[in-house]
Amino acid sequence: MTTDADQSAIDDLVSQVEAGERRLHELEDHVDSDTAAAARRQLVERFSGANCETIGSYGFPAESAEPNIENMIGTVQVPLGVVGPVNINGGALDDERYLPLATTEGALLASVNRGCSVINRAGGATARVTKSGMTRAPVFRVTDVAEALALVEWVREHGEDIQAAAEETTNHGELQDVTPYVVGNNVYLRFRYDTKDAMGMNMVTIATKAACDLVEAQTSASLVALSGNLCTDKKPAAINAVEGRGRSVTADVIIPHEVVESSLHTTPDAIAEINTRKNLIGSAKAGALGFNAHVANPVAAMFLATGQDEAQVVEGANAITTAEVTADGDLYFSVSLASLEVGTVGGGTKLPTQSEALDILGVRGGGDPAGANADALAEAIAVGSLAGELSLLAALGSRHLSSAHESLGR
Amino acid sequence: MTTDADQSAIDDLVSQVEAGERRLHELEDHVDSDTAAAARRQLVERFSGANCETIGSYGFPAESAEPNIENMIGTVQVPLGVVGPVNINGGALDDERYLPLATTEGALLASVNRGCSVINRAGGATARVTKSGMTRAPVFRVTDVAEALALVEWVREHGEDIQAAAEETTNHGELQDVTPYVVGNNVYLRFRYDTKDAMGMNMVTIATKAACDLVEAQTSASLVALSGNLCTDKKPAAINAVEGRGRSVTADVIIPHEVVESSLHTTPDAIAEINTRKNLIGSAKAGALGFNAHVANPVAAMFLATGQDEAQVVEGANAITTAEVTADGDLYFSVSLASLEVGTVGGGTKLPTQSEALDILGVRGGGDPAGANADALAEAIAVGSLAGELSLLAALGSRHLSSAHESLGR
Amino acid sequence: MTTDADQSAIDDLVSQVEAGERRLHELEDHVDSDTAAAARRQLVERFSGANCETIGSYGFPAESAEPNIENMIGTVQVPLGVVGPVNINGGALDDERYLPLATTEGALLASVNRGCSVINRAGGATARVTKSGMTRAPVFRVTDVAEALALVEWVREHGEDIQAAAEETTNHGELQDVTPYVVGNNVYLRFRYDTKDAMGMNMVTIATKAACDLVEAQTSASLVALSGNLCTDKKPAAINAVEGRGRSVTADVIIPHEVVESSLHTTPDAIAEINTRKNLIGSAKAGALGFNAHVANPVAAMFLATGQDEAQVVEGANAITTAEVTADGDLYFSVSLASLEVGTVGGGTKLPTQSEALDILGVRGGGDPAGANADALAEAIAVGSLAGELSLLAALGSRHLSSAHESLGR
Amino acid sequence: MTTDADQSAIDDLVSQVEAGERRLHELEDHVDSDTAAAARRQLVERFSGANCETIGSYGFPAESAEPNIENMIGTVQVPLGVVGPVNINGGALDDERYLPLATTEGALLASVNRGCSVINRAGGATARVTKSGMTRAPVFRVTDVAEALALVEWVREHGEDIQAAAEETTNHGELQDVTPYVVGNNVYLRFRYDTKDAMGMNMVTIATKAACDLVEAQTSASLVALSGNLCTDKKPAAINAVEGRGRSVTADVIIPHEVVESSLHTTPDAIAEINTRKNLIGSAKAGALGFNAHVANPVAAMFLATGQDEAQVVEGANAITTAEVTADGDLYFSVSLASLEVGTVGGGTKLPTQSEALDILGVRGGGDPAGANADALAEAIAVGSLAGELSLLAALGSRHLSSAHESLGR
Repeated sequence: MTTDADQSAIDDLVSQVEAGERRLHELEDHVDSDTAAAARRQLVERFSGANCETIGSYGFPAESAEPNIENMIGTVQVPLGVVGPVNINGGALDDERYLPLATTEGALLASVNRGCSVINRAGGATARVTKSGMTRAPVFRVTDVAEALALVEWVREHGEDIQAAAEETTNHGELQDVTPYVVGNNVYLRFRYDTKDAMGMNMVTIATKAACDLVEAQTSASLVALSGNLCTDKKPAAINAVEGRGRSVTADVIIPHEVVESSLHTTPDAIAEINTRKNLIGSAKAGALGFNAHVANPVAAMFLATGQDEAQVVEGANAITTAEVTADGDLYFSVSLASLEVGTVGGGTKLPTQSEALDILGVRGGGDPAGANADALAEAIAVGSLAGELSLLAALGSRHLSSAHESLGR
Repeated sequence: MTTDADQSAIDDLVSQVEAGERRLHELEDHVDSDTAAAARRQLVERFSGANCETIGSYGFPAESAEPNIENMIGTVQVPLGVVGPVNINGGALDDERYLPLATTEGALLASVNRGCSVINRAGGATARVTKSGMTRAPVFRVTDVAEALALVEWVREHGEDIQAAAEETTNHGELQDVTPYVVGNNVYLRFRYDTKDAMGMNMVTIATKAACDLVEAQTSASLVALSGNLCTDKKPAAINAVEGRGRSVTADVIIPHEVVESSLHTTPDAIAEINTRKNLIGSAKAGALGFNAHVANPVAAMFLATGQDEAQVVEGANAITTAEVTADGDLYFSVSLASLEVGTVGGGTKLPTQSEALDILGVRGGGDPAGANADALAEAIAVGSLAGELSLLAALGSRHLSSAHESLGR
Repeated sequence: MTTDADQSAIDDLVSQVEAGERRLHELEDHVDSDTAAAARRQLVERFSGANCETIGSYGFPAESAEPNIENMIGTVQVPLGVVGPVNINGGALDDERYLPLATTEGALLASVNRGCSVINRAGGATARVTKSGMTRAPVFRVTDVAEALALVEWVREHGEDIQAAAEETTNHGELQDVTPYVVGNNVYLRFRYDTKDAMGMNMVTIATKAACDLVEAQTSASLVALSGNLCTDKKPAAINAVEGRGRSVTADVIIPHEVVESSLHTTPDAIAEINTRKNLIGSAKAGALGFNAHVANPVAAMFLATGQDEAQVVEGANAITTAEVTADGDLYFSVSLASLEVGTVGGGTKLPTQSEALDILGVRGGGDPAGANADALAEAIAVGSLAGELSLLAALGSRHLSSAHESLGR
Repeated sequence: MTTDADQSAIDDLVSQVEAGERRLHELEDHVDSDTAAAARRQLVERFSGANCETIGSYGFPAESAEPNIENMIGTVQVPLGVVGPVNINGGALDDERYLPLATTEGALLASVNRGCSVINRAGGATARVTKSGMTRAPVFRVTDVAEALALVEWVREHGEDIQAAAEETTNHGELQDVTPYVVGNNVYLRFRYDTKDAMGMNMVTIATKAACDLVEAQTSASLVALSGNLCTDKKPAAINAVEGRGRSVTADVIIPHEVVESSLHTTPDAIAEINTRKNLIGSAKAGALGFNAHVANPVAAMFLATGQDEAQVVEGANAITTAEVTADGDLYFSVSLASLEVGTVGGGTKLPTQSEALDILGVRGGGDPAGANADALAEAIAVGSLAGELSLLAALGSRHLSSAHESLGR
């Protein structure tokens, strides 16, 4: 896509960088973003011997990606497909939707799609956000535990001041609560915010910084780090699995036993048994914080499709799958994701392909009321996860059954 | 990119699907992959009102992605950039390399790049794979614990038979060991394989299936599920953090205190203190399985760039960062990733943009000896993670320091 | 201690039980407690061939133990010793105290005593209860997540009614809050109470039962179990380590480096290094919820001495030890116990030897204000734990140092 | 029990200690153990105002407790009772036994006893030790990860030398394996031993010390601490729950549905449902390492009765309870304890009352073959735990059922 004129500018830049006269991330100061990316591709190709042709064949102006990356050389293109449409009876999203998934794992969409079909046959999945709040937990150093307790008490007494300081920095965010934790001379304050349709990490970081300034100004505590890891962002941690972060969301469905038998070729009993032995007891024995089969798969694929933060797939995997036979012999099946961090504004959601994927779901941008779009996205991902879990456990169940048949036939 | 001829074929397909005469995933049976994708886009656009133009503007033939997705409508394009080149003194990769990262999080590459500069100034990072092996853990049902113990003993006595059965299915994989776990009438057998340059999930699943057939044929145990969740794949689980899965890899560096001061504007002491209060004590209090700042960021970005399985970022976050002041007053800094599941053959690594990114690293395809390329990729990701951790902790340290200066100035 | 008259009564009882005419636990219906215990001893001796002489040589009337055991045959006698007196600067206990410890592990008291000496030389330990509340978490079954969310909202709206129902059952307990958790069609409500000087499990169980009756009467939820394991009682669980249960209590001390060197034969640096490599990084790698060396030792020994529930040693081990060198080169050392469940009234505290041990600490019975005695006991145990940690790490440090000296001498 | 002569000696000692002329732990150098204990009691009584009469009324000579405690003032007496006899079909213990439990928690023995009755009615419980080995994991410091990997390889190559060094220190212990773990410049080596009938902590500590001397002599690694917390002793840690420590032991039973109904007043279905909602899903949500109801209760009570280390109740709680309805409608019920650390020789097992309790079980001293007695003790504790779990879940089930009846009657 580069013209002759461009090519000469590119050659100049490449020479300058190789000569140490310019730095790799300064190219946008001199040329447009696409030219800068082309120059970097050429540099990288010469250094590594790689051919970066498809990386350079992206479908939108590079400047669209400026807030999202530095040192851009192009794009990675990940296959995107759809499953559904699936019927969602959610608190925020009550309709049929195609679900967009981007993945490199063959058979994933086929599996999720099968789950969606069965969900539809059962009348659709129910979904609800049961808890919500984005967190940030700075760590302060104090002299000793006497001072630590004094800080905890100060925080309890100055809730309104802290809230005012934090909320002054944001038009949308609302501070919900601050929970203190003491370990020796360390005090961690876990701030929890309603961030509406934003995933909200930037918003809560800025707001919490303002609150920390107040704490430091009025107490003897010293801020060590704006994140003291009790947030917890992008690390597997029980605090998220227990208390939630972002959205806690559950999707469930009751599937008539006839549908289980005809569509999934297994029985409610078999699925419940496999869920217990694998997802509950197996995960228990593994020391797990995730009691499910492969929730991370649809979560990662829908995160990637819709411009979410891929590193937050870590928390997205804190999910529990349950399966039981109802009094009527049908299958109750659910997935509860404790800490799904999603947004429909900001971050990667504005990128061209990602915003189109959000349009497919009908949840791009701010919701009405505020927060409704991110809730809807959370519900859609929960239903995608439900479909994925159902399909995988059913596959195990039908194999189990057929293998049982075989062995009976011997 | 679609021609007039295409458009008419597309219109036909769309009508047929809307009429319920064809199913969404069957379109490739009738037209080429690009046409099928275009038809699906049109269907989705009509259903949702979305415009999928950039999703459709991908830079390679859709059939390249056939093994990786079903119901393809195009690609998600994620900005890709590079950092470095960084000097890696690894066991498998001993050279300078640009590291490719794909992300939507602004400032990430700038941060990792800063870390790489400092690592270079310190003479480069050391990296080693300290343990290796991909696992799969089927669950069997037995009558009671007496039979469970009998199965455990049978497995211990028939190691060679099991190995022969498993390895018959694969040209590359080697069974390393089988570890049994008993919970009531459930027996979990954790198979661990050397899968060379493949991430290896498919390979080990097939091999383990063959071994399970042997177990079922020769004992009274009944296979419930090929994965009993003690593998553990794509869920946060202590078994991976403790025992490892895929590659266990560490990168470290000793940074002279002058470099810490001049380049990072902080001190070894400050970085060690922050690491202790945040990454060690904070994570301890959070009930974490990840004791680091944001290892998941470079892991996710390099996984995405190089065609790894994005859902395995979950295990990639099982990492511990350490920082200490040496006897000479310099900074020892390390990151140890317990369960990094990577490959340079198979899966998403063959996709056009992803394979180019592997070429940038010089690790595409099978290594020599086998496994060397995946080891090298693991080392590169560990060094990227080291750079990211270093940069973030240093930023906290310098802010801390400047804030300390301010308060002293008051 | 049994008279002739007793012996004949005993013989009769033994014959009757052996003949199946009486049951083992019914003996107290016919004879006094000591005679019943003697009869059971004789039965057990005849059945097993054991001689239960010392078991029968207890130092108080058996009826004192009636609320605490069934089928009593005597007592187990565990050696009891004291350490200290140690200087405690607590929020509830601000004085010198001998600490009573009952154990069968030789060297434990010597070690804790050494720690106490050093603490005294440093001017005493500071201790504070930073959080308090005994929990009980019933689990309810609902139809689906829509009903689950409705229950959560009902609970949020009926806080006062729930509190009234719960508190009607108790003179002392106060309901602090109720936190709901949803997993599929299960709703767990974690009730947290101030139980004053009682450990409080019975109190909160009864109060929570009353609250559950209200929930069942006014909603469609069905109580499955009064404890749904989110309490969490007597199981290792992150929810306790993170959120606390019973008392969260920290003890710390700043030890001048001269004292570390002269009394502990090591350095602040060495202790800090060992704490980091062992208690922080080692525990991190172990997937631990306890980041300490042997806090369970003093906790178990003081629990046993003072009539606490020995099974709650499990939660008592959820402790983090920190060690750092201060700006002045001294040693800051702390232990934070997240979930120490203690009481000075009820349960085993009324037993003769145990109540004497509480008197040694000066904390028997109800405190003034209510809760002060249990707070004081928590502080005393925290200081005992601090002494134990300090002594063990110092021993490692001095061995390390001497071993370093040796190797330098080579 | 003290004579006049004693009293004057006591008065002298008390004066000397109060004058600072003697130290509390030196009294045994001058008088016999009982007199020393009496003197300390008097000191403590004068200091605290407590009356230590029952503490002083112990049933054996104080010198029996000399290896087990320092600064002894008497004993704590904990009520001891028995349940059973219960029918155990174990690998090491295949007979009927009374189980001794020492506790201060009223109703515990009644509950366990009820469980035992039902187990007997079902023909007895099966029990097996499925894994065995006591561990100790020293931590070494190395320069960097290159040296860490070199150490790991050295260990792998010198297995026989390490074994020889370790086993030279012990007549009974056998080194089973050494597993290395690397975190930055820390290398943890987890040594696992067969310690026969000893719980074995002392044995493995001494043996591991000898092995560490070899490592330090032949490599550049430096020992930081003999325990690097990957053992893991007396802390809640996933490594024990996953890999086991001491004995991994399971007890299970199949209870005919008629027995469940007539004796427990509930149904197999109800018990299975409660186990799933409470012990599996509830514990999962709590971030637990223990998926049971109250296993720590019988474990603590039997540990206390038989002279085990009470602080190791922590690991004893790493247990999973399962319950399911069999194809015949009966109840399969199991408890699997991952890390039960028990011995029948050494430690507290030699104390007078404790050794009598071991005689009640018929497992005192060394077994034939070596290890058989400790295996038998583990099996007995597992069956006691099984009885406790069964009884508690059944109680919940019958309450649930009656409450269901009530609500149906309305």
